[in-house]
Amino acid sequence: MPRAVAGPEIERLIQLIARLPGLGPRSARRVALHLIKKREALMAPLAAALADALGKIVECRRCGNVDVCDPCTICGDPQRESSTLVVVADVGDLWALERAGVLNARYHVLGGVLSPLDGVGPDDLNLPKLVARVHEDKVAEVILALGATVDGQTTAHYITDLLREVPVRITRLAQGVPVGGELDYLDEGTLSAAIRARTQM
Amino acid sequence: MPRAVAGPEIERLIQLIARLPGLGPRSARRVALHLIKKREALMAPLAAALADALGKIVECRRCGNVDVCDPCTICGDPQRESSTLVVVADVGDLWALERAGVLNARYHVLGGVLSPLDGVGPDDLNLPKLVARVHEDKVAEVILALGATVDGQTTAHYITDLLREVPVRITRLAQGVPVGGELDYLDEGTLSAAIRARTQM
Repeated sequence: MPRAVAGPEIERLIQLIARLPGLGPRSARRVALHLIKKREALMAPLAAALADALGKIVECRRCGNVDVCDPCTICGDPQRESSTLVVVADVGDLWALERAGVLNARYHVLGGVLSPLDGVGPDDLNLPKLVARVHEDKVAEVILALGATVDGQTTAHYITDLLREVPVRITRLAQGVPVGGELDYLDEGTLSAAIRARTQM
Repeated sequence: MPRAVAGPEIERLIQLIARLPGLGPRSARRVALHLIKKREALMAPLAAALADALGKIVECRRCGNVDVCDPCTICGDPQRESSTLVVVADVGDLWALERAGVLNARYHVLGGVLSPLDGVGPDDLNLPKLVARVHEDKVAEVILALGATVDGQTTAHYITDLLREVPVRITRLAQGVPVGGELDYLDEGTLSAAIRARTQM
């Protein structure tokens, strides 16, 4: 804005909202205005929820998940099978797998994937604890739920190597046609993978 | 999510973020995760900025603008010409006009437009103060900066009627081809208005 049309507190709020992912200056102003209009119904609860979460959020020392307790809700759940350990790059991936709701396993959050270009090496990931957990928890299967990217697959191979001496089954997610996907729009790599991994009808 | 994967504080934060305009459940989770990762750099300042703004935001008793002071920054600015009064429906419209930066006037925020369908009548708008201000501030021109919608134009005509007896010039925004607009994509109403209001080269 060329001149200040509102006090610095409102400008600062807009600037902070604009730093959230998926929001630009225009949508940040829209969000700020909505909050200002719904001060009691939305702004106050949001401020309270942020302050509340801020004071409580911790990283789980076992698996690297973020939660308001340590061990986290999943690590502390006695109903989860500890014989299956799902390795994910990020907490967002853990949430996505939980939404799918097909697993009743425990997780291990690496905190990223190996990426020489971005300067991410093995020491930057939560790997030593992974090896320790596989031993301690008597894990029967490690599912490498990493992205089908070069870095994701490099990381998968690195972990397979790391656990070579350990008597554990190591699997990775299937590659193929996504549900609802049309062949027309799929890239050659996905189609090749789907053909190679074709299954009996 | 089928089961709780995180404490209720995180779930509540996601639910509140999902109520912001332009954000759905998926983008709310993304925003929440981003905040959780950037606890010190973004979540803490945002919580503080929200709490700060929450305690300070007030509606200007003169013009209906929202700000952290009353009278608001614009009403309190002695450099603004008080002879021109720009009538807007909403604070967002005021912000938009200020970004255009062509006016050095004062504003009057109606808090909506007349809308029989939505049950918004003259009593629901900030109209009595408008008439009072036009008298008191010796306003020479009232610019009706209302949307080119049926409700916006109805409101413009209503205000013109309301100020019939007052010796003040009443104008409204020009209608025509938006800057950068291609004729091909414009509706007939806009094109007719642009032809009727054509100007000398």
